Amino acid sequence: MYGDSQTKNVPQWNQETDVLVIGSGFAGLAAAIEAHSAGASVIVVEKMQAPGGNSSISDGGVAAAGTPMQRAADIVDSPDLMYADMVRAGLGLNQPALVREVAERSAETFQWSTEYLGVAYLDRIDQFGGHSVPRCYTAEGVSGSTIVKRQLAKLRQLGVPIKLQTQFRKFVLDDSSRVIGVCVREGYSFKDPAAGTDCSIRARMAVVLATGGFGADVVFRSAQDPRLTGEIDTTNVAFATAEALIETLRVGAMPIHLSHIQLAPWTSPDERGFGDGPRFADYIVFQYGLVVSPTTSKRIVNEMADRKTVADAILAVGHPCIGIADERAVSQSGWSIERALRKGVVRTFQTLKELSNFYGLDNDELSSTIARFNTCVERKADNEFGKPIIQNACPIQQPPYYAVRLWPKVHHTMGGVGIDVKARVLDLHGHPIQGLFAAGEVAGGVHGACRLGSCAITDCLVFGRIAGRNAAHEPRQE
Amino acid sequence: MYGDSQTKNVPQWNQETDVLVIGSGFAGLAAAIEAHSAGASVIVVEKMQAPGGNSSISDGGVAAAGTPMQRAADIVDSPDLMYADMVRAGLGLNQPALVREVAERSAETFQWSTEYLGVAYLDRIDQFGGHSVPRCYTAEGVSGSTIVKRQLAKLRQLGVPIKLQTQFRKFVLDDSSRVIGVCVREGYSFKDPAAGTDCSIRARMAVVLATGGFGADVVFRSAQDPRLTGEIDTTNVAFATAEALIETLRVGAMPIHLSHIQLAPWTSPDERGFGDGPRFADYIVFQYGLVVSPTTSKRIVNEMADRKTVADAILAVGHPCIGIADERAVSQSGWSIERALRKGVVRTFQTLKELSNFYGLDNDELSSTIARFNTCVERKADNEFGKPIIQNACPIQQPPYYAVRLWPKVHHTMGGVGIDVKARVLDLHGHPIQGLFAAGEVAGGVHGACRLGSCAITDCLVFGRIAGRNAAHEPRQE
Repeated sequence: MYGDSQTKNVPQWNQETDVLVIGSGFAGLAAAIEAHSAGASVIVVEKMQAPGGNSSISDGGVAAAGTPMQRAADIVDSPDLMYADMVRAGLGLNQPALVREVAERSAETFQWSTEYLGVAYLDRIDQFGGHSVPRCYTAEGVSGSTIVKRQLAKLRQLGVPIKLQTQFRKFVLDDSSRVIGVCVREGYSFKDPAAGTDCSIRARMAVVLATGGFGADVVFRSAQDPRLTGEIDTTNVAFATAEALIETLRVGAMPIHLSHIQLAPWTSPDERGFGDGPRFADYIVFQYGLVVSPTTSKRIVNEMADRKTVADAILAVGHPCIGIADERAVSQSGWSIERALRKGVVRTFQTLKELSNFYGLDNDELSSTIARFNTCVERKADNEFGKPIIQNACPIQQPPYYAVRLWPKVHHTMGGVGIDVKARVLDLHGHPIQGLFAAGEVAGGVHGACRLGSCAITDCLVFGRIAGRNAAHEPRQE
Repeated sequence: MYGDSQTKNVPQWNQETDVLVIGSGFAGLAAAIEAHSAGASVIVVEKMQAPGGNSSISDGGVAAAGTPMQRAADIVDSPDLMYADMVRAGLGLNQPALVREVAERSAETFQWSTEYLGVAYLDRIDQFGGHSVPRCYTAEGVSGSTIVKRQLAKLRQLGVPIKLQTQFRKFVLDDSSRVIGVCVREGYSFKDPAAGTDCSIRARMAVVLATGGFGADVVFRSAQDPRLTGEIDTTNVAFATAEALIETLRVGAMPIHLSHIQLAPWTSPDERGFGDGPRFADYIVFQYGLVVSPTTSKRIVNEMADRKTVADAILAVGHPCIGIADERAVSQSGWSIERALRKGVVRTFQTLKELSNFYGLDNDELSSTIARFNTCVERKADNEFGKPIIQNACPIQQPPYYAVRLWPKVHHTMGGVGIDVKARVLDLHGHPIQGLFAAGEVAGGVHGACRLGSCAITDCLVFGRIAGRNAAHEPRQE
């Protein structure tokens, strides 16, 4: 029967701990740190050979509202404004209490990352698509690994072990349906599912599920959205699969928003995976430049809209669109795009005519599109698509021109298991499943129909910490 | 543990049958008829005191593409066109194979309803919102009960019993996870959950789940869409709840599109439930008239768009909008709106000024809105919102004017358990759960993000029949 193996014959435990954390990305590591700080013994299990998961390859952007740096830069922001931005992008499907928690704890959590973890951020505050004001901080190296490394260093310092190549297989529940431990596969290999041996770990207090999203799981994602077949690339690591989510649904967790799967609008079909084009597209083109259709040579969307709006607009064109910026935009932005240029994903052109010829655009049409766009920039008002013109934007007119082809890839799964504000996993009746917490991409409800860029890391850190703290306050089962 | 009660201590069966059907709406009754016709013994269980469920209070609209009546009326239609309409409304989330099945079997199923069941339809073919051509047939009495009654008559004739006040509680599975029967509550009372006694029914071949949607289940629907609190009314019967869906998810069924919940755009806040306003709004205002915002006195949307588009447009206004038609539209339409007039849900006005005064509209603005609309009607082209102007549309100018206030109510839950084209329920890995079929609103995937009006009954009949036939071809367990 279904669920049988989760529960029959409670095993001779191979190992015991107070709090067991499954997954070693932003959320799992934050949970482990907090659970340990609250006095619990903690074990983290990670299925891969290295910790960090998808978090390590993220771009390290963290949204936070009401920080001292914002005040120093005269940016007026608040948790209420961040909340409103997230709910607008999420089309109102977001669970209000969860969004509020993320927005209200964002500044304190950002500060925790710098002061307690020692994460270093670039000296800039960006306004990414869908945000009303600049509130996005980027970890040094423009990589989530900067944050993950500091989290790992902290856990080493605290003496919390991370068991690598240890894949979560099943929950163990007691007769009252409380989660009391898990079965895992030690010596797990993503490439050789037969490898390793089964064993069990008791969690005397609770289990924290922090296993990430299912963006790379073609079977599961295409069941929810049949367009997302294996033909569609993903920015995720190949092992961003659904098996832990599935096991959690099998013990009766409430599925939330599973069919809301985010496509990144700033990815290029001219490279695999996340790649190097996004930094140019998202941080330079969308902010300073414009995106044109290859068939009309006209703009198609407010390039600073949320990801769903922009990705849907590109998909509606039916062919990869062209993102364009100029020398001044690149230099104003302060971002390095060396790697994308070396790979040929971003190309340079001395004239718009050259650019038009290369991408098969209508040069006259493109010239008038850019002229119209430049007028918007000069007037600080986009009367065509309502794009907010950022402060140091300039007309696109200084060669060389830079361009990238854009086509969406699967990026983030908004859906997952339902949680409450204490990060407790909810069952199908909306009641907490005892002994089980979840945080990060495996949990659903924070982002609704569409996640704003740079809100995921904030979510992972905020709810990871909440999950860890509350797990460590569960009664210890003797 | 979760799922335990589904499976332990296989009961002494109180009753046995080959195929057990849960639910007695369109889908369940169609399944029962087909299963019996295929040679199986069949029992239908229904939790309420009367059969028919939500189906009985539906408006009895059935979409079918490529019928003899369409050909006689020179309407060019095809399953391909119906498929395209359904997928466009569903925003591409629909499972293509399921939509294709509905579209391709629609004409044959409609014919089955008339010839085999003896259902009588009104002598008209309507084009409802989101359909490219007229392909919607309406059962006599403008009520789903017309179809349900013929289905019940057929089952009486076939000798298939319907056990009323018998609520499905849990599945019984064997050691190989096959569904082999169910636990039910006999003598169930929706108002007194403590009433009745538990017993069990063995299904030697299979169980067909046809328990409908969860539009009236506030806890479950607001977990998926937090805006759908108890404050929001529903067109559904009060017992359209999620308990059977939940039990099916608990045995490991794949949840599909649960957060896609349809709001009806043609409901009035001036009456409870489905009410009598919708016939005027959907069949007359949307087809012949216009919908204006109470704040601008201007049109807000293509009134013939799919339900999501129209409902979202009304919600975006933030206040009930006003649907307007005139005497000629009412008479051209051929629909009687006596009851809505008697209730005062639809009101008449001798002049537009009277109408404006009553609803607080700007009379000058309304007059020019209607003048512009009338120009569109005369030119057979709506240059403002792209509404298709139907053949016998006329300018809105002949008093009395008719009007209704419009505010969305929860109408249909697109999501449910995953099924394949054989109506087998899919598990979380996309494999069929042995011995379990599903059809109708409890199944997800056919309609994607938004169901087109009149496609639900077609879906229920098509997949109900498929489920019943395939259930009756499962090996009989002795």
